[in-house]
Amino acid sequence: MSGVFAAAAARLAERGKALEDLMGYADRPGIISFAGGFPDPATFPLETFRRVAAAATAKRRGFQYAPVAGNPRLRERVAAAMPFPAAPDEVVITSGSQQGLDLLGKILLDPQDLVLVESPTYLGALQAFDPLGPVYVTVAGDEEGILPEALGEALSRMGGARPKFLYLTPNFQNPTGRTLSGERRGPILELAARYGFYILEDNAYGELYFRVPPPPPLRALPGGEERVIYLGTFSKILAPGLRVGWVVAPAEVRRAFLQAKTAADLGSGSLAQEIMLGVMEELVLADHLRKVREFYARRAHAMDRTLGEVFAGGVGVWRVPDGGFFVWLTLPEGVDTSMLLPMAVDRGVAYVPGNPLCPDGQGARSARLTFSCATEEDIAEGGKRLGEALRHFAT
Amino acid sequence: MSGVFAAAAARLAERGKALEDLMGYADRPGIISFAGGFPDPATFPLETFRRVAAAATAKRRGFQYAPVAGNPRLRERVAAAMPFPAAPDEVVITSGSQQGLDLLGKILLDPQDLVLVESPTYLGALQAFDPLGPVYVTVAGDEEGILPEALGEALSRMGGARPKFLYLTPNFQNPTGRTLSGERRGPILELAARYGFYILEDNAYGELYFRVPPPPPLRALPGGEERVIYLGTFSKILAPGLRVGWVVAPAEVRRAFLQAKTAADLGSGSLAQEIMLGVMEELVLADHLRKVREFYARRAHAMDRTLGEVFAGGVGVWRVPDGGFFVWLTLPEGVDTSMLLPMAVDRGVAYVPGNPLCPDGQGARSARLTFSCATEEDIAEGGKRLGEALRHFAT
Repeated sequence: MSGVFAAAAARLAERGKALEDLMGYADRPGIISFAGGFPDPATFPLETFRRVAAAATAKRRGFQYAPVAGNPRLRERVAAAMPFPAAPDEVVITSGSQQGLDLLGKILLDPQDLVLVESPTYLGALQAFDPLGPVYVTVAGDEEGILPEALGEALSRMGGARPKFLYLTPNFQNPTGRTLSGERRGPILELAARYGFYILEDNAYGELYFRVPPPPPLRALPGGEERVIYLGTFSKILAPGLRVGWVVAPAEVRRAFLQAKTAADLGSGSLAQEIMLGVMEELVLADHLRKVREFYARRAHAMDRTLGEVFAGGVGVWRVPDGGFFVWLTLPEGVDTSMLLPMAVDRGVAYVPGNPLCPDGQGARSARLTFSCATEEDIAEGGKRLGEALRHFAT
Repeated sequence: MSGVFAAAAARLAERGKALEDLMGYADRPGIISFAGGFPDPATFPLETFRRVAAAATAKRRGFQYAPVAGNPRLRERVAAAMPFPAAPDEVVITSGSQQGLDLLGKILLDPQDLVLVESPTYLGALQAFDPLGPVYVTVAGDEEGILPEALGEALSRMGGARPKFLYLTPNFQNPTGRTLSGERRGPILELAARYGFYILEDNAYGELYFRVPPPPPLRALPGGEERVIYLGTFSKILAPGLRVGWVVAPAEVRRAFLQAKTAADLGSGSLAQEIMLGVMEELVLADHLRKVREFYARRAHAMDRTLGEVFAGGVGVWRVPDGGFFVWLTLPEGVDTSMLLPMAVDRGVAYVPGNPLCPDGQGARSARLTFSCATEEDIAEGGKRLGEALRHFAT
């Protein structure tokens, strides 16, 4: 990289290069992709979108700049829909929750700052924080999420240093599908209060449960208002193409956040916000969500079935998630999923290797399999192809 | 500001605070605002927007994630519309040109890096660059833009240091309305090539000329392809509410830019891009632009007329611009336009004081007056109110 670029560009390039290579695979014709983390367009409420878009485009307002904090009526609707009491003023509309992560990184992180993360964690969050040059400290966990004891130990090992924040996807995590148990949420929040750091609670998947709702968000617990910066999005439950997400944050964070948002884009798209407002007013969200949950539950089941057929007898280890888009598959010792990927692609199936998602470096024999955007038939066929690739790798 | 925030947040807060105070004024009921830099919604081609939005919302594609670089067909259209030969691959769609500035700052600037700017310059550019902590070096100019000799002197004064880039709004500049003469463009580009820095050519207003088109962009001159990063936007000529702008950049810049864009928002809104594509396909842009130019020319003329009546005899100095949205008014020695503003607002008129727009600190007795979003009657009345405020200030 030429000397004219900033240190941030080099930091971005490291993970960016890996991702570009991966994304190149997903585009190949004929491939069954378990790689991208997209919702299936079949779940988009297209009729409602059409109707409200026709109304929104009839007014000039949707074509002028919007307030930087977002459309006031949309902020009201979002605030009222939160699983905790929130005032409209506490909500800031963002261009997807990815922008929330980017701007929070920008206002909170200096080089060498400590950031607590799960491992594996959401790749997009690492990409958003990477350019700022933080040091990631991973917190150990199990199938029920990170362990409060492990978090406590990580904090005491820091000596006098204080982390800037803990980035957490408590519900149906990307990439593991795991959910942080209700019992652990309070103790984690208490540690945030005691040590004085924020928790970035990314709840992109919380509404997409297959059986029962996940436990209440950390933001809803006593003290959550001060310590938790909550990120939400319409991308997985309605549609990502309008780029509408939101952040609910304490006042001091919100103020800096709005200044960063002004500098970043002068505010999110007006028309997209008018349309989302219309959808929230017209759509019976509960009915829509019921259908979407059933839709993805069937695919999760299909993924579980094909993995059961292909990787039985301990060849692979995975757990059917209770919601969301992802299964985390761990293969036998000696398998490197980054090296396996080209063989899988040759056989017509793609996934995301575990390594780039694991700040603790423990992801080499794991893979993220997305079941959200493949049909049940493709999931069955893709699973078989993956099994063939593994047999080829092993021989 | 609490110690949990990054250095960037403090840098953002400085100018952000000033802007928040200003923007608070513009909202007051009954006020005639020459403050905001918005286009008039009357110029939006609403019928066309409605028609193409109906077509765009009929397809699921507009609701899924878009490629990070943008809708391929929109990139083709934009490339073909540039006033220089450009391949679709060279174009990256952004969420308004403000996002272009933000991401270019991110990939190019480290703290203490040198950035060459006009003074006054576009406030949003300073806001975008501020969090990175650059040092601004102003380049002197006159009514025909910055002086190549002054740029040469500024560069030789730097000794061995090399600026990262020159930020330039060559056409109908925000805030002065001035245009860089054609004769100066080549020599400025030559200095960029000789000293090895980029030129960020922000052409937000180039299409909005009142009499004759501005000179060809620096990007169109020999060597511009290597040295110029060109920023364009639909915000002033079609509508800002869809947040669609673009960057045309050399390959090495584009690569880092795309990684930064991925991290910032995973790509711009799909539906907005589909709609802009439809508008470009359906609207006869030349006819639309002719109407928009006439619309703003009338307002520029109205502003000139009222200033002529109110500030005659050397009380104020201004120049009618040949295009764009803005007039730069300079008042007599001793007037401080920041102190004058509350008095103006009390009389029902608002503007942007010159100081925050002038990195050289020479803006205290100047003001930016936007004529784009006030009617001719309001421009006449607002001018009178401004005159009253000045008389009150002087007594």
